[in-house]
Amino acid sequence: SNSVRVAVLPGDGIGTEVTQATLAVLEKLAKRHGIGIATETLPAGAFHYRETGEALPESSFAAAKAADAILLGAMGWPGIRYSDGTEIGPQLDLRFRLGLYAGVRPVKAIPGVPVALADPRARDIDLVILRESTEGLFFSRGRGTVTEDMAEETLRITRQVTEKLSRFAFRLAERRAARRGRRGVVTLVDKANVFRAFAFMRGVFDEVAAGFPGVEARHHYVDAMALDLLRRPWEFDVLPTENMFGDILSDLGAGLVGGMGFSPSADIGDEHAVFQPAHGTAPDIAGQGIANPTAMLLSAAMMLDWLAARGAGQGYGDAALELEGAVDAAFAAGLRTADIGGRDGTAAVAQAVAERIGA
Amino acid sequence: SNSVRVAVLPGDGIGTEVTQATLAVLEKLAKRHGIGIATETLPAGAFHYRETGEALPESSFAAAKAADAILLGAMGWPGIRYSDGTEIGPQLDLRFRLGLYAGVRPVKAIPGVPVALADPRARDIDLVILRESTEGLFFSRGRGTVTEDMAEETLRITRQVTEKLSRFAFRLAERRAARRGRRGVVTLVDKANVFRAFAFMRGVFDEVAAGFPGVEARHHYVDAMALDLLRRPWEFDVLPTENMFGDILSDLGAGLVGGMGFSPSADIGDEHAVFQPAHGTAPDIAGQGIANPTAMLLSAAMMLDWLAARGAGQGYGDAALELEGAVDAAFAAGLRTADIGGRDGTAAVAQAVAERIGA
Ligand SMILES: CC(C)[C@H](C(=O)O)[C@@H](O)C(=O)O
Ligand SMILES: CC(C)[C@H](C(=O)O)[C@@H](O)C(=O)O
Repeated sequence: SNSVRVAVLPGDGIGTEVTQATLAVLEKLAKRHGIGIATETLPAGAFHYRETGEALPESSFAAAKAADAILLGAMGWPGIRYSDGTEIGPQLDLRFRLGLYAGVRPVKAIPGVPVALADPRARDIDLVILRESTEGLFFSRGRGTVTEDMAEETLRITRQVTEKLSRFAFRLAERRAARRGRRGVVTLVDKANVFRAFAFMRGVFDEVAAGFPGVEARHHYVDAMALDLLRRPWEFDVLPTENMFGDILSDLGAGLVGGMGFSPSADIGDEHAVFQPAHGTAPDIAGQGIANPTAMLLSAAMMLDWLAARGAGQGYGDAALELEGAVDAAFAAGLRTADIGGRDGTAAVAQAVAERIGA
Repeated sequence: SNSVRVAVLPGDGIGTEVTQATLAVLEKLAKRHGIGIATETLPAGAFHYRETGEALPESSFAAAKAADAILLGAMGWPGIRYSDGTEIGPQLDLRFRLGLYAGVRPVKAIPGVPVALADPRARDIDLVILRESTEGLFFSRGRGTVTEDMAEETLRITRQVTEKLSRFAFRLAERRAARRGRRGVVTLVDKANVFRAFAFMRGVFDEVAAGFPGVEARHHYVDAMALDLLRRPWEFDVLPTENMFGDILSDLGAGLVGGMGFSPSADIGDEHAVFQPAHGTAPDIAGQGIANPTAMLLSAAMMLDWLAARGAGQGYGDAALELEGAVDAAFAAGLRTADIGGRDGTAAVAQAVAERIGA
């Protein structure tokens, strides 16, 4: 059969709310496109940690690993922390343990959703921050050393992961050129003017670039990129970068196109992938039914697209396109969530999007 | 006498052009306020490196160190690099060797200069990125290890420097509350949810904060700050942060208020200070007389203000205020540089500002 198994980790706070809304929409999509999506909901997150001492139970991890794809809400909660004081982060564990090196974070203006910049060209923003998600500064997570007088962390960049990330970037640019009419430009974002590790990263990137003569390869310093994401974001296409830089730049990117509520993401490895909205658990609005599920809906669309590319069947690809189109159409028609000053709650968004499926 | 000695390092490219324009304005200010400013121009930079093999000759360093303040244009040039491939960066050497831990980077909308954001409140932006400038990831400069398969850098945060930076931040917030009517809020920007070194930094910051009960102390994650600098930059005041984070966020900040041409900076230590525009040498427009000298003029105003605070005399403080006011007035009256789509060149800006001094 063409049924796929999706491990669902709703997590904490609004993570559970946007997950519920998204599963309803996925159900409608599955019917319409004749595709099978079998979901299994798994416990993980800050509240689970408080109850059991485990943020990501081995059983949840094993089931997630065995599934065809993983859909994740959001995790973490104020006041619930690991013993070293850092935040509950099973999403980070999944990235490391499953080798999800490619953090795909699209930044795309949605019709009808206000953009941050005054320049009218900001409506044309359509780029992807490609955040390396298993090493860089995050290699140091749990490994930092602290004494009375100083603390140190280690930033690590490997040839192997940089090669994979670079290949992923060039393939993504090729695909975007073919399907979305983008120019096919990959711009590595680094700090090679100061750090040898980034000069190394650039060298490896350039080697991979030589194998993709149809895609333009560029470099940009991370500080200049922060500036240019304000000055001319519509000119960029695919932006691979180190983990910490990608964390910062992808939030910046989200801010350009309506905020975290509109920012999907995928953490993709050679065998596994996690799809989750870029936002957190939003304790301030959790439980009120007003969370914007758009980022989660668009993350689900990325999941369907990835499943199709992995051979699940054309129906998944069609479903992905229809879901993305339904979201665009709903906002273009006037849907307005609380985060952009409107009154449409979680269920209203899901309904507006679902109505446009098969319509 | 009340004369101060200023070491001037014009550097490369437009660095020399904006320096020349600024020295002319300083001369007029000095006459008007009866203050002495003795300048000594010193060689350093990429072209000097190409000629002599030294980017910052010891004689220039010694003279700069002996001076009361250091005014720096910009340094570096494409194709001129150190043997390990990194960029010529005497400004970094000065920060390290003189212990200039406090990188003060004001982000302030100038009347008449277009801001990037559509929200009208963006005209009220008035914050300071306080970039720690001697350690953090930059501790690793020249120390990174590279093998065939991987590269590593070390991020270091010390208690001593964090204490100094934090005290600097709280004093700056007190001063801004008294003089500019700001709210007196210091927000440490870190990534304490993931890294122990940043939890350490936060702990030290909190200890220092306890000694400044009149100033509100907060924390913010660096990724969320990148987003909030787009969503509500007008709400922030003083933002101390790690070196690499500050490098990125200060360029982002510059992008909010007209770009690097309007972004002054100061690198301040316990004994010495360097004042320089945030921009680089701009090889693409160097030699054409069209570089915007505003960032350099405002950096010079910061220098005069710092000299006054160090006891040089009230005349320096008055000159600082008048220079800042003259820049504001010139742009409010319609001055438009090439970087914001206008036609006023380097000399025209200097003249427009000079005309408003003593007027
Ligand atoms: C919650 C946090 C640990 C996480 C990260 O830093 O990776 C988040 O900011 C993200 O971008 O996915
Ligand atoms: C030129 C470069 C080395 C420098 C830095 O990274 O510090 C610059 O970006 C700055 O912000 O002063």
